[in-house]
Amino acid sequence: MIRLAVDAMGGDHAPEAMVAGAELARDQHQDLEILLFGDEQQLQAQLKDSTRIKIKPTTEMITMEDEPVRAVKGKRDSSIVQAALAVKNGAADALVSAGSTGALMVVGLLMIGRIKGIDRPGLTVTMPVIDNEIGFTMIDAGANADAKLDNIRQYATLGTFYAENVRKVKHPRVGLINNGSEADKGDIAHQKMHDMLVQMGENGEINFIGNIESRYLLNGVADVVVTDGFSGNVALKATEGSALAVINMLKTGIKTSGLRGKLGALLLKRPLQAIAKKMDYTRYGGAVLLGLQSPVIKGHGNSTAKMFKNCLDHAYEIASSGYTEAVKEYLLKSAVTKQATEK
Amino acid sequence: MIRLAVDAMGGDHAPEAMVAGAELARDQHQDLEILLFGDEQQLQAQLKDSTRIKIKPTTEMITMEDEPVRAVKGKRDSSIVQAALAVKNGAADALVSAGSTGALMVVGLLMIGRIKGIDRPGLTVTMPVIDNEIGFTMIDAGANADAKLDNIRQYATLGTFYAENVRKVKHPRVGLINNGSEADKGDIAHQKMHDMLVQMGENGEINFIGNIESRYLLNGVADVVVTDGFSGNVALKATEGSALAVINMLKTGIKTSGLRGKLGALLLKRPLQAIAKKMDYTRYGGAVLLGLQSPVIKGHGNSTAKMFKNCLDHAYEIASSGYTEAVKEYLLKSAVTKQATEK
Repeated sequence: MIRLAVDAMGGDHAPEAMVAGAELARDQHQDLEILLFGDEQQLQAQLKDSTRIKIKPTTEMITMEDEPVRAVKGKRDSSIVQAALAVKNGAADALVSAGSTGALMVVGLLMIGRIKGIDRPGLTVTMPVIDNEIGFTMIDAGANADAKLDNIRQYATLGTFYAENVRKVKHPRVGLINNGSEADKGDIAHQKMHDMLVQMGENGEINFIGNIESRYLLNGVADVVVTDGFSGNVALKATEGSALAVINMLKTGIKTSGLRGKLGALLLKRPLQAIAKKMDYTRYGGAVLLGLQSPVIKGHGNSTAKMFKNCLDHAYEIASSGYTEAVKEYLLKSAVTKQATEK
Repeated sequence: MIRLAVDAMGGDHAPEAMVAGAELARDQHQDLEILLFGDEQQLQAQLKDSTRIKIKPTTEMITMEDEPVRAVKGKRDSSIVQAALAVKNGAADALVSAGSTGALMVVGLLMIGRIKGIDRPGLTVTMPVIDNEIGFTMIDAGANADAKLDNIRQYATLGTFYAENVRKVKHPRVGLINNGSEADKGDIAHQKMHDMLVQMGENGEINFIGNIESRYLLNGVADVVVTDGFSGNVALKATEGSALAVINMLKTGIKTSGLRGKLGALLLKRPLQAIAKKMDYTRYGGAVLLGLQSPVIKGHGNSTAKMFKNCLDHAYEIASSGYTEAVKEYLLKSAVTKQATEK
């Protein structure tokens, strides 16, 4: 049985969308049990069928306006803190929230804790690729703006294990976002990252294919895109925003073309729907904080029931994939090897 | 009379496209004179009408494979070096090339030289904005990957003058690309950049509107987008690549939908053309290296005659706008004020 701890009070459409999403996920997976943390009365009112769904009453809420560290320390009976404690205490296998990203990172770090050998968790998102259904995975998408060389090394390892175990990509191609594909491109920091990743590739730790340009992300130039949290965030938002801008121009163009527009859109229904479906990356089920003792999944703030269900599916997949155990074992072995080599 | 020095041998379609582009620009501007640097025989063969176009024979060429510094020093009789020398010696007002970006930066720095008060020139590009025709201007798009605080200060000034004088934007809104709009976002370097730009705004030097996210670039969130060359390059390429990926998906979808697709595309001809036109940023006429003693314009490597004509128009506009003189005067005054304050 996979057990998910769910912050049912986080998100613009909480708790309705969270409860409805939980029911959808429960219906799909026979071995899934969900703990819903939040206001008892509200959750009771929303929950239609309590099969494998337990309500865990909490009395406080952390909002987007709260300063994360202070809120986590001050609001012990908030839904997100109690859900995190359930994971910490072994009552649940993974944590899911569509609330404050800051608060989720804090409970992840302070309560669930890092895997030994990981200094900073990386925010990991999967985005679409035009020609395949697997998409590409980016780590770090913005958890750690001041990334150091060791963080990048760890992201490359975490991303590779995630791609292999969860997304089922064999021998995933790892690329580094840089200002050009040549080895000497970028600022000094990224030149060093490149050289270190080359070394990891030569050691057989990862399948490093070299520097990649943000221009080719949607073309699937790599399976795992390693990046510092600053430029990763810039690349991700530019990629999302630019695709959306073009799609919106098209929608507006169709709307303002009257009957011709309506008829044209009808004839092009199939390709237009294919684009909308392709660019809807909410199907990948939110972002994961990789590098923690248990999976922590962040849903989009505006998650609908269906979007939140995708996040729960995602948490279920990671928890049942053996990903975390595989990473832990690998890092332990590396540490032992390193110690042995150094002696 | 505005005189442009043109490297007619740089670019995938050189020299044909360069010569044809020069003739188009000459026909449009009555007070424009063009000096075409390159292989005499080839240029003679391409040039149809020599009115206000002079061929300046050179015997060497710098290719994309050449190491820029060595090539510029070794190939003195190359078209790009001789064109740069013409600008340096006052025989021309601006330099235009679609050849090696590296070589162009080297001749810009070593031959044309920086404006006093500018440490590093910034590569400046103008990109489309969905709802207006002016677009936005980004500096630095990748000339200087390891930007320091002083570089960012200078980019804010150069970008503001360029927007005002060349792109005719009154009181241009300056934004800094960061991981969120709040003041404390980003890595330490970008937090410092933000605070410095706030100070410049308070001093009345620029109209700083704060941090902006790469997600909203095409929505026109700022007129001048200031950024370090590393993340600027990442943002620019992601924005271009993502828009192109969606447009290509649409094209493929239409093509593979047979007769329905053809008819649908015909009915949606107007909005589809509008999108294609909007996203065709080659109309902004290439990138400018801002901060040099004379305008230096870099055309895209695959420039056609029409694209290269846009670059020449752009060079003509900058040279006739009084931009460089205004920046020089401003920086001179600032230096004098600074000295006086320090005494």
